[in-house]
Amino acid sequence: MDYETPQFFHVMQYAAAADGDVIDMVSGNPDWEPPEAIRDGLADYATADASEFQYPPSDGLKPLKTEIADRRQVDPDRVIVTNGTGEANYLGMARALDSDRGDECVLIDPVYPYYPGKVSMLGGQTTLVEANRDGTLDAAATCEAIDDDTALVVLNTPNNPTGAVYTIEAVKEVVETAADHDALVVVDEVYDHFDFSETFESALSLDADNVIVTSGVSKSMAITGFRVGYAIFPPDLVESAKTRHMLVNVTTSRPAQQAVYTAYRETGPDYYAAARDRLTRRVDAFTTALDAAGAEYTTPDGAFYVLARFDGFPGTMANVKTLVDEAGVAGMPGATFGTARDEWLRFALVTPRAEEAAERLVEYFGE
Amino acid sequence: MDYETPQFFHVMQYAAAADGDVIDMVSGNPDWEPPEAIRDGLADYATADASEFQYPPSDGLKPLKTEIADRRQVDPDRVIVTNGTGEANYLGMARALDSDRGDECVLIDPVYPYYPGKVSMLGGQTTLVEANRDGTLDAAATCEAIDDDTALVVLNTPNNPTGAVYTIEAVKEVVETAADHDALVVVDEVYDHFDFSETFESALSLDADNVIVTSGVSKSMAITGFRVGYAIFPPDLVESAKTRHMLVNVTTSRPAQQAVYTAYRETGPDYYAAARDRLTRRVDAFTTALDAAGAEYTTPDGAFYVLARFDGFPGTMANVKTLVDEAGVAGMPGATFGTARDEWLRFALVTPRAEEAAERLVEYFGE
Repeated sequence: MDYETPQFFHVMQYAAAADGDVIDMVSGNPDWEPPEAIRDGLADYATADASEFQYPPSDGLKPLKTEIADRRQVDPDRVIVTNGTGEANYLGMARALDSDRGDECVLIDPVYPYYPGKVSMLGGQTTLVEANRDGTLDAAATCEAIDDDTALVVLNTPNNPTGAVYTIEAVKEVVETAADHDALVVVDEVYDHFDFSETFESALSLDADNVIVTSGVSKSMAITGFRVGYAIFPPDLVESAKTRHMLVNVTTSRPAQQAVYTAYRETGPDYYAAARDRLTRRVDAFTTALDAAGAEYTTPDGAFYVLARFDGFPGTMANVKTLVDEAGVAGMPGATFGTARDEWLRFALVTPRAEEAAERLVEYFGE
Repeated sequence: MDYETPQFFHVMQYAAAADGDVIDMVSGNPDWEPPEAIRDGLADYATADASEFQYPPSDGLKPLKTEIADRRQVDPDRVIVTNGTGEANYLGMARALDSDRGDECVLIDPVYPYYPGKVSMLGGQTTLVEANRDGTLDAAATCEAIDDDTALVVLNTPNNPTGAVYTIEAVKEVVETAADHDALVVVDEVYDHFDFSETFESALSLDADNVIVTSGVSKSMAITGFRVGYAIFPPDLVESAKTRHMLVNVTTSRPAQQAVYTAYRETGPDYYAAARDRLTRRVDAFTTALDAAGAEYTTPDGAFYVLARFDGFPGTMANVKTLVDEAGVAGMPGATFGTARDEWLRFALVTPRAEEAAERLVEYFGE
């Protein structure tokens, strides 16, 4: 497996060991408070009857599964509560490669590196298709890459790292072409609560029998360490995915499930709106600074990353280290995200110091 | 995948729907209190800084990993904190089948049904080797089944469902033969705190470079729903297992890790001794009743199950249902655990009503 996670850790370790003050724009951990109900839910659960500390149903606590199904307007039987969106993606991708569909997997470049890592672990072959320059889905190029050997297409919208929000029409085109070739499409919507464009539409709206939608609350509730996500499978595909979930994990950790259920029930839309507002302010400040620094970038429509390209300063690991040492800002090398953005750097805006980081970049790159 | 979990659920659902009062001896959930420190650890964590709600290291919170390593006297780098022992077994088994070792997996019959389920999911082939009549490991027969196609042997001691505790000599014989054929051995020691014989010795003592030891606190701390387990790999095999863990689950749920760490630190040997005492009292009462009912059985040396055979009443699903309806006791059909015990029934002693159940069996089967 040629999975590249060590690069994340490599940068974080390098930044931690640096002499000066370094602003961490590497990791995707929200820096704000989780909903208060997460804390309340955990504290309540700590006093529960001991029987509630035992195995929940393998596919998730029933009230949580029902809550998710209601929110996504699907039959609860289609929902599997997973150990984060990471496991949800694994289950969806494994379901595609489990079958006689072939072993080719079409991924969009730039690509979240866990996807090709999972493909490789599952014995599949990755074909990368470049996104448009602005990060949106190039539906025509993607459809062209799909053939009878294709088992799987993975889409991620809102997108990490580009910040693009795909149109439902583009997604639909890919889903229909995939269906023509008996391929499944996993649509990772974990950033669904971070849509600044107000154009995001879930792939569930397509009601397609070859679409698996994954998501979770790691980002939306600022609890990446809790590991609560879910996969929504088409009815005909869900049973064997439940079996895999059971054989790999038995079930998802119950304290986390219980806290998330409480938070779903007790957290209003204001909480999510405040997170979006906070991020859009940071995006504004950061992109204004990128203008001043003479960088190329696309203003993200969603998620919480900005990809930027500085002339004469490609997104190599060496340059990332230079930026840590000389500007006091840690980003991620674009080369980590496939081949299409190896000239670029990715900056995660989940730090209260995003504006300060922007000023440092202006100082370093500005004339 | 021909995994048979539905049988567990099938019996539980049948018992729940029965007219009369039924004593549940199906599931393996401890019925006693977790250590008080589990509750304290969770409650404390509920008030932690929001940064502690984010991703822990993929292979586990450092203090927890160190605590486990200290207890098992291994290098912390060999430890992966997993989503329960279930994931630990999955990682160990996948590590064996990942390689060019072949695809044959030797399992001991009677067999915990998740093992052949995982083998099948991972594309391996199961060879079942019968245990001795008393449930102990038949090392000679097991070694005979190992050849150059063998990738993996899975042992479970103390054993579910037989209650046997394997001698370290028998385990060593299998491990050495496996090494001769470049096969790995996963030793599932999740019942290590339930050794009534005081003869259990961990396979870690062999210091063998083809042994992966798995365990967890689901049973020992009575928190099957928390999903905290671990795998201890040989140094040369651990890195790619960590990669798989990361690609499948990213990491194990942090509230559960934190609570377990607190409980490790604050729970004395008395807690575990009390659980053993409780179980040995139940074993005594239950086996005394089995004598009175004219059943064949082996007194368990560990774990918390009793396999029993009643003349003329084989361990079929039909007979399990008859026992629910006519005796008010729900057990598991022996046929669920491979082929060697299809005449038998398994009773889990994790109910305060174990003695009452025994009386019901005497009344039903006694003359």
